[in-house]
Amino acid sequence: MTRPRPLVPPPDPTDSVGAIGEFGVIARVLARSGTAALAEVGPGDDAAVLRAPDGRVVVCTDVLVEGRHFRRDWSSGVDIGHKAAAANLADIAAMGAVPTALLVGLACPAGTPAAWLEDIASGMADECDRFGAAVVGGDTVASAPDSAAVVLSVTALGDLGGRAPVTRDGARPGNVVAVAGRLGWSACGLAVLRRGFASPIAAVTAHRRPVPPYGAGPAAADAGATAMCDTSDGLLADAGHLATASGVRIDLDRAALARGFLEPPGPLQQVAAALGGDPMAWVLTGGEDHALVATFPAAAALPHGFTVVGRVAEGAPGVRVDGVPAADVAAALGTGGTGHAHFG
Amino acid sequence: MTRPRPLVPPPDPTDSVGAIGEFGVIARVLARSGTAALAEVGPGDDAAVLRAPDGRVVVCTDVLVEGRHFRRDWSSGVDIGHKAAAANLADIAAMGAVPTALLVGLACPAGTPAAWLEDIASGMADECDRFGAAVVGGDTVASAPDSAAVVLSVTALGDLGGRAPVTRDGARPGNVVAVAGRLGWSACGLAVLRRGFASPIAAVTAHRRPVPPYGAGPAAADAGATAMCDTSDGLLADAGHLATASGVRIDLDRAALARGFLEPPGPLQQVAAALGGDPMAWVLTGGEDHALVATFPAAAALPHGFTVVGRVAEGAPGVRVDGVPAADVAAALGTGGTGHAHFG
Repeated sequence: MTRPRPLVPPPDPTDSVGAIGEFGVIARVLARSGTAALAEVGPGDDAAVLRAPDGRVVVCTDVLVEGRHFRRDWSSGVDIGHKAAAANLADIAAMGAVPTALLVGLACPAGTPAAWLEDIASGMADECDRFGAAVVGGDTVASAPDSAAVVLSVTALGDLGGRAPVTRDGARPGNVVAVAGRLGWSACGLAVLRRGFASPIAAVTAHRRPVPPYGAGPAAADAGATAMCDTSDGLLADAGHLATASGVRIDLDRAALARGFLEPPGPLQQVAAALGGDPMAWVLTGGEDHALVATFPAAAALPHGFTVVGRVAEGAPGVRVDGVPAADVAAALGTGGTGHAHFG
Repeated sequence: MTRPRPLVPPPDPTDSVGAIGEFGVIARVLARSGTAALAEVGPGDDAAVLRAPDGRVVVCTDVLVEGRHFRRDWSSGVDIGHKAAAANLADIAAMGAVPTALLVGLACPAGTPAAWLEDIASGMADECDRFGAAVVGGDTVASAPDSAAVVLSVTALGDLGGRAPVTRDGARPGNVVAVAGRLGWSACGLAVLRRGFASPIAAVTAHRRPVPPYGAGPAAADAGATAMCDTSDGLLADAGHLATASGVRIDLDRAALARGFLEPPGPLQQVAAALGGDPMAWVLTGGEDHALVATFPAAAALPHGFTVVGRVAEGAPGVRVDGVPAADVAAALGTGGTGHAHFG
């Protein structure tokens, strides 16, 4: 047997953030960060300057806290870089846009290994590279005096390429509801990690490095999607966001979800069988796969990758599954809620 | 005597972030946040959409950590909002651009008073309002399990209005070096607060709410500035950034600095006399006033607000004051360095 490569590089006091300093870290990280195709002024100045061909810029930000959103013993630096980038890039795609750049804020203890931060930068660069995007700016500071945790803030920018942005509030009765990407894989992988297993089975890998269906975002916009968001909080919760913003009821079809997301049987069933439980719980409430849930006019030709999972109806804003309100569905599945609770 | 209003609202367990939840906080904070004139899609969706009239967008990010960059017992929530916004908006101005929007990431303990976060939002909104800018997006998460500290990440966007961005690398021998804004006030105020005084004298107010010379940034670009940055780390350090990026020597003139920034005598002399020390130390090495230091061709007509403080010369990249290298100047002043050390 070969020993697995450790997730965190072994401590090296001469190569910590405190030892090499802020500017040393920045230089090391930038060497891994690539160059954004649209950057007119890249990292190293007071601010970056990025071309915005559409004449508008799409922008969002996420904060990832060690011990809440990632763990160094569960994910490598490269994994964390991929995941932090993906969470934001998926939000850009969910507007119908194509990512163009990232900015990264980092608060970390002085003892943080610089090599681990380089790994994070490498993961981000890999995740951005397919778009010609890259990190164009950032800030590195010491974490709070009482904390040994790393906090990453990631801002993503994107370009709409002339498309109208697809917001959350355009779902209309009669629309179909469709999902592109994976549902439940990240939550399933998290359940495996929580039990103390760390084998790189597909679901664990999906938790460490989600695979958002980036291209499906602009494709949905082109196909006339009326509303869209990414499933960072889980399908029930995020469909709920569309329902609330649009003032409509969303009726999900459990059989369609099972056909689309549990067939043919795969890692969700295998893990559910091993740990006990219903894989549909992960499909309905598991977040962080960054699938896209969108609504389309009934007559629209859905873009490749989208699976119809329900319909939009008139009614009190909310989500039902086979007619049962989301909260009752979640309670029956024992998931403790319809999705991710940020201050739970 | 009236009792001073407490800086932090008294604890109210029913009005904490944990009690009202992420979406409750977001709703409360957004009610204070105003609307960005250029926002096509504002807060509440996966991402914001902002018009970029110039066809380019200027963007930067900063992380502010409680206990490192602000203290709740030294600054009110409104102060912290002003300061966090100003630090980023000044970076936009330092490129020659006008701010258009902010995004704010927040990691905070569940016990954080929601009213205090509203105060931060109010301060940010005030600081943005002069530009027609506002917060267009953000993220709110629980802070690290081991930490009671709040971490704010702020991303600012701006528009160049057709100007060429003013970067750090364009200073040329023969250029003049000029500064707009205040130097040393924030550091002086910090010295007062560190001695346990909290009276709102001018320097303390300047520490709590820096007053960057925003308009001087675009004006400098219009006047042909060859290089520019904001003095977030202190004049010696930030002039050093220009010198290094441009490959030039910057010669500062102590008498010109004294005339421009210590005359007529004001809070710096008063505090220096009371605490003991040389106010020039704050002028040369005090950060966080977010003054702008720029270089101009010798023949340029300097915009209103800029004071000439030195010249650019050929030579090994670095800063000298009356011919003495910056490190020696700082050592003689007893400041322990040329500016702010982020992992000191």
